[in-house]
Amino acid sequence: MTDTAAQDADINAEALAYHAEPIPGKIATEITKPASTQHQLALAYTPGVAEPVRRIHADPADAYRYTNKGNLVAVITDGTAVLGLGNVGSLAGKPVMEGKAVLFKRFAGIDCFDIEVNADSPDAFIETVANIAPTFGGINLEDIAAPHCFDIERRLIERLDIPVFHDDQHGTAIIIAAGLLNALELQGKTLAAAKIVILGAGAAGIAAIHLLVSLGAKLENIFTLDRKGVIHPGRDDLNTFKAEIANPTDKRSLADAMQDADVFIGVSGPDLVSDAMLASMAPKPIVFALSNPIPEIRPTQAFKVRDDLIMATGRSDYPNQVNNVLGFPFIFRGALDVRAKRINQEMQIAAVEALRTIAREPVPKEVLQAYELDKLEFGPDYIIPKPFDPRLRERVPQAVAQAAIDSGVAVIS
Amino acid sequence: MTDTAAQDADINAEALAYHAEPIPGKIATEITKPASTQHQLALAYTPGVAEPVRRIHADPADAYRYTNKGNLVAVITDGTAVLGLGNVGSLAGKPVMEGKAVLFKRFAGIDCFDIEVNADSPDAFIETVANIAPTFGGINLEDIAAPHCFDIERRLIERLDIPVFHDDQHGTAIIIAAGLLNALELQGKTLAAAKIVILGAGAAGIAAIHLLVSLGAKLENIFTLDRKGVIHPGRDDLNTFKAEIANPTDKRSLADAMQDADVFIGVSGPDLVSDAMLASMAPKPIVFALSNPIPEIRPTQAFKVRDDLIMATGRSDYPNQVNNVLGFPFIFRGALDVRAKRINQEMQIAAVEALRTIAREPVPKEVLQAYELDKLEFGPDYIIPKPFDPRLRERVPQAVAQAAIDSGVAVIS
Repeated sequence: MTDTAAQDADINAEALAYHAEPIPGKIATEITKPASTQHQLALAYTPGVAEPVRRIHADPADAYRYTNKGNLVAVITDGTAVLGLGNVGSLAGKPVMEGKAVLFKRFAGIDCFDIEVNADSPDAFIETVANIAPTFGGINLEDIAAPHCFDIERRLIERLDIPVFHDDQHGTAIIIAAGLLNALELQGKTLAAAKIVILGAGAAGIAAIHLLVSLGAKLENIFTLDRKGVIHPGRDDLNTFKAEIANPTDKRSLADAMQDADVFIGVSGPDLVSDAMLASMAPKPIVFALSNPIPEIRPTQAFKVRDDLIMATGRSDYPNQVNNVLGFPFIFRGALDVRAKRINQEMQIAAVEALRTIAREPVPKEVLQAYELDKLEFGPDYIIPKPFDPRLRERVPQAVAQAAIDSGVAVIS
Repeated sequence: MTDTAAQDADINAEALAYHAEPIPGKIATEITKPASTQHQLALAYTPGVAEPVRRIHADPADAYRYTNKGNLVAVITDGTAVLGLGNVGSLAGKPVMEGKAVLFKRFAGIDCFDIEVNADSPDAFIETVANIAPTFGGINLEDIAAPHCFDIERRLIERLDIPVFHDDQHGTAIIIAAGLLNALELQGKTLAAAKIVILGAGAAGIAAIHLLVSLGAKLENIFTLDRKGVIHPGRDDLNTFKAEIANPTDKRSLADAMQDADVFIGVSGPDLVSDAMLASMAPKPIVFALSNPIPEIRPTQAFKVRDDLIMATGRSDYPNQVNNVLGFPFIFRGALDVRAKRINQEMQIAAVEALRTIAREPVPKEVLQAYELDKLEFGPDYIIPKPFDPRLRERVPQAVAQAAIDSGVAVIS
């Protein structure tokens, strides 16, 4: 057994015990009002519920006043792309969805129902989600395979008047963008001029491209690859989402694309970047090797090849972890706080800016303590905030909420 | 303002405040496992969730081991028959569904997600509920209008391998049956010989008829009325559910039906039973006037007309409250405990027997204390257990679970 396999076996056994003992699962419901006496139950149920029902019937907005709708997010999957495990079905996705609910609650005080949907088509999934939407203040789509995820999200956003956010797309893209902007500055580069390789044209890759372009990256400088190589207009196998980002280039392989690239963003699979590819990149490159748990190239190996790079991974045991938990709890917190009707690009960019700013400011003592560090300063090994930084909860929701107000999608301010 | 109107205004104001302050609504989600450190979050989410996902993918039954599915019930409505307020829409039903979630948790420790479904047809509702069913260990349908509710429940039971239970039908029927069996015994009558009037042919009325027949009542002795009078085969306006229980009688009006009746069960509306009707019933009659908050005839009035009756209502401020909370938390508790695939008639009858037996046994001191009573003894003013009786939690789930095992619908025992 390799070291990694032994470590995996250890965490697997511990994780199974964590999930099974002393009770199955990780989340429950709790009663938030006194409910011990007959009188209290008469308020909580009949006859007390009648008047709140009448009020909401007269004005649907009163649901935000008399029920938990306004603090309640659904984490919904169809089970078609669970972690890196693929289409394992919705039920098998439940531990992930419950885990997401744990993070929503832990980091942003948001209540969360995990919903696993058995749907035999994207249309059936959309109908189901739209039909249960009155229950919730927001919807976090999760682990839905590309390319259907793009269409599913767009159609639900059009149909519903609450935020619908596919975290695997935009959550990931927002953290990537925040880290990348900081890394570019440290390397003395700009997004507008950077040559960027994106390996992986799924939910995260496509969303990252769109967000980076909206932040100033040039589509002609972005070389995206799927399993068949560089996505260029000459290919006859592109869906509309890939066709939109196709680059009329002569580059065909990953090795071609990496030559002189400033930025590599991997959202693909383990060990796909060779030493030679890394060596061929432009001076002072930036490598986000986000495949999890095994990156496209391991930091220990990468720094043997060259020492002028800035590197991020999806792992917590290396510096610069690109971790979605930096985003979704706070983005939804901000959206719910002003009852935003959607999470638009302005709000996403506000989250990017808030995240990158936090990483550039002095780190509070409690963060050093939480991570048992003596110091942590903005630089190549610290371009993204750490999850247990209390400034995230203070600053990101506020920035997102303000952007919602400024862009006209907030119901209250 | 009448006394009743003033009382209503008081509870309405108090109930609105209860629902709105200090936070909106009545239920939230809580994290049941340690989730404070980076390591704990690595167990709760990635990479820890991967192995539970793999296990459930390999064996779906492992969802009961590694997630909260087995203790999680959905309370689902389409908002077509909310309380006595009618088709107010699913969102307006949310306070009721959250209230039900409070009761599930408070009385049986069952976690509960309320789901409000916007569906434009029974088919759409069924599809939606079936599609989200993997999430849950059981489904409690609530406040769905008759006659659609019958078909909806039947089709969901056929499709799903978890219990589906429309509480407005079977929950109500079970409590009625338990109280009625005790009342009949006290009055020296039998279910087989009793002439029974059912006023209201909706969810509760129809379900009560079927349960009473399965317990020994004779369909030819049951006279059911809807808004148009006695349901008899000569009518050309009967749906299949009413046609099934039509009685080939000459009786046409409520007054006709009440003449010499032993039992009246009202699941209809306020003040529909006159003094003369009550006076015309057989000696030692039983009157369950369950319209809420205003019964078909008020106990204070009824006992002025005659004193040989046993009476129950839906209200907590009169003796013998027929309250669904005596049933659904414990029935689901029993079903979940043995992972029953459905809640069949055997389990429902087991609940009836457990409830009526509890009412006949000496009352524990803590019940007297909870209700500030000096004594409470089986008799005309105590035919049904009280909600805060701890024996309910001890005995009803066990009886239901045993019936599930004996009837072959339990997965574990």
